[in-house]
Amino acid sequence: MKLDIAVLSGDGIGPEVTAQAIKALEAVAHSFDHTFIFKEALVGAIAIDKTGNPLPNETLELCVNTDAVLFGAIGDPKYDNNPSAPVRPEQGLLKLRKELGLYTNIRPVKAYPTLIDQSPLKRDIIEGTDISIYRELTGGIYFGKKHLSDDGTVASDLCEYSKMEIERVAHLAFKAAQKRKNKLTLVDKANVLESSRLWRKVVTEVAQEYKDVTLDFLFVDNAAMQMILNPSQFDVILTENMFGDIISDEASVIGGSIGLLASASVGDNCCMFEPIHGSYPQATGKGIANPIAAILSAAMLLEHFDLVGEANAIRDAVEKALELNITTPDLNTSNPLSTEKVGDFITDYI
Amino acid sequence: MKLDIAVLSGDGIGPEVTAQAIKALEAVAHSFDHTFIFKEALVGAIAIDKTGNPLPNETLELCVNTDAVLFGAIGDPKYDNNPSAPVRPEQGLLKLRKELGLYTNIRPVKAYPTLIDQSPLKRDIIEGTDISIYRELTGGIYFGKKHLSDDGTVASDLCEYSKMEIERVAHLAFKAAQKRKNKLTLVDKANVLESSRLWRKVVTEVAQEYKDVTLDFLFVDNAAMQMILNPSQFDVILTENMFGDIISDEASVIGGSIGLLASASVGDNCCMFEPIHGSYPQATGKGIANPIAAILSAAMLLEHFDLVGEANAIRDAVEKALELNITTPDLNTSNPLSTEKVGDFITDYI
Ligand SMILES: CC(C)[C@H](C(=O)O)[C@@H](O)C(=O)O
Ligand SMILES: CC(C)[C@H](C(=O)O)[C@@H](O)C(=O)O
Repeated sequence: MKLDIAVLSGDGIGPEVTAQAIKALEAVAHSFDHTFIFKEALVGAIAIDKTGNPLPNETLELCVNTDAVLFGAIGDPKYDNNPSAPVRPEQGLLKLRKELGLYTNIRPVKAYPTLIDQSPLKRDIIEGTDISIYRELTGGIYFGKKHLSDDGTVASDLCEYSKMEIERVAHLAFKAAQKRKNKLTLVDKANVLESSRLWRKVVTEVAQEYKDVTLDFLFVDNAAMQMILNPSQFDVILTENMFGDIISDEASVIGGSIGLLASASVGDNCCMFEPIHGSYPQATGKGIANPIAAILSAAMLLEHFDLVGEANAIRDAVEKALELNITTPDLNTSNPLSTEKVGDFITDYI
Repeated sequence: MKLDIAVLSGDGIGPEVTAQAIKALEAVAHSFDHTFIFKEALVGAIAIDKTGNPLPNETLELCVNTDAVLFGAIGDPKYDNNPSAPVRPEQGLLKLRKELGLYTNIRPVKAYPTLIDQSPLKRDIIEGTDISIYRELTGGIYFGKKHLSDDGTVASDLCEYSKMEIERVAHLAFKAAQKRKNKLTLVDKANVLESSRLWRKVVTEVAQEYKDVTLDFLFVDNAAMQMILNPSQFDVILTENMFGDIISDEASVIGGSIGLLASASVGDNCCMFEPIHGSYPQATGKGIANPIAAILSAAMLLEHFDLVGEANAIRDAVEKALELNITTPDLNTSNPLSTEKVGDFITDYI
């Protein structure tokens, strides 16, 4: 197979970890006889610094015409304390999601047996946890009409959803549940929000086409508790954009290391793969960033193109590295390896 | 002191636990020579059943003319699966908050040393946790304009905040921080929401009046992680209505038992005290409900009226009960006592 892959490595540790993911993909290309063509482009704070724009037109152009996007991370402390600044790195990411039509964000959360003791939660609570979170990514309060009164004393954001927006992500989530444990939990706040009531209605309708999947509902406040009390009860979680942002970040810490978590953002015409950790500026250039989340994002990319054996080759290599404790300082205090060395081991193992 | 207290015990286990809180308050009245006059009224599912209205006019009337409201719980499974039903118990609670102007919800979250092992989180993570969450309660997306298109395919909710709404709850939160560890964390999503940017701006201005309090900011997704990774970093958390609903419920599980957590909802003219557990219908009438959250809500009531010694008398009695393991089955599997017996012990101890 031939794939054009745009590489947007971004800020902070983004470039370091993305480099390891590319190495892993090149090893796969070599072993399985594929051709992957990588083209780099700017995004985030580095793009603002160089062009004034967090998502330059050439970057968007490249992404629109590529098969997949490999994304690093964005964000720089110099923008963090001023969310009202006219240009900010996040705007690049949000615009990219919207322009590429990436309406579904998929985040797997798994308790790796070797890492359970690193979790802030007790072993018996997290054992067996294997969740796939489907978050709507291009609608809701993120993209609804914003307003600030002329005198600056009243501000508002509109959370709006249409049936179509709910249906398309729901179908992807139900299909995923069919390949997993046939359970889907819709997280909403239907006891308060009109938009949540529409979610419940539309998802209940879509469920008719997936009779083998059990659908249940959880209010978001309760979901935030259940995620800690009993995470292994979940299979697929489906939710709207803002709730998904919160619940998926909460879920990300139960597995023991955020340095392992990958995500995919998909739409009808494009797809993007991204480690969920951020740009982690304090670690930049020190060789201590964990490359596994970026490498597992590459595995999600392969799986997206039905290269299942290839994806598993990456996952096996990662599990081997974890088993042998060939890991960065976040997971390994006694004998840590560098970002690059961990990447090398995984690449060689593939 | 003479206090008129409206008692809205509501649904499920509400009446059982509220009865124990009243006993504790009566013991305090007796020991400290106060007069507390209790008047009961209907709210929630039971009010719908009896009057068709989750907040009958007589109930609202009583609350408006009282010094404080002691609230039990609302909710009944027969309404849960139909959030679109025209009349629902939650509407009573939301209307009560709005009509009484209860714009601040205060929830203390503490790790009780005797209960740490009951927590889903590891001991070293939660030790020392002592948080007070200030949630705005009468604004934001809960009360903003809702809309459903005529053909039922587009739904929306408006999240709107004014400077005044932010200021008044912020002042209460800063004052609380001054009596605690002088730290206030604003939780928002200012990298995405216009309303959050107004929160940041206004809270930063209010902070000028409280120079002894350190203010910091956390995006809500990060807050959801930090609450699990390192809850003892927090002192006072201030946040808007929806984020407060999620974050405070998440925080409620770290202490080891939701059966211990009390809350206060305060405004300029009224105040209401409520255990944070819900109506827990499965436990109704079995004598297994933990009355401590309701009893600690009564302590918050006393403290609100500056009856600090009285509030501490209740808290000491509760700590004694926990220490001697005089507790309900949720905390005590070997030799559990009934709701009433736990209430009796605490009352006698006072
Ligand atoms: C950076 C921010 C705008 C973004 C979001 O809220 O979606 C991030 O938190 C994420 O989850 O990818
Ligand atoms: C019952 C519901 C409307 C309510 C809320 O969301 O405010 C509850 O979850 C709470 O936190 O008191």
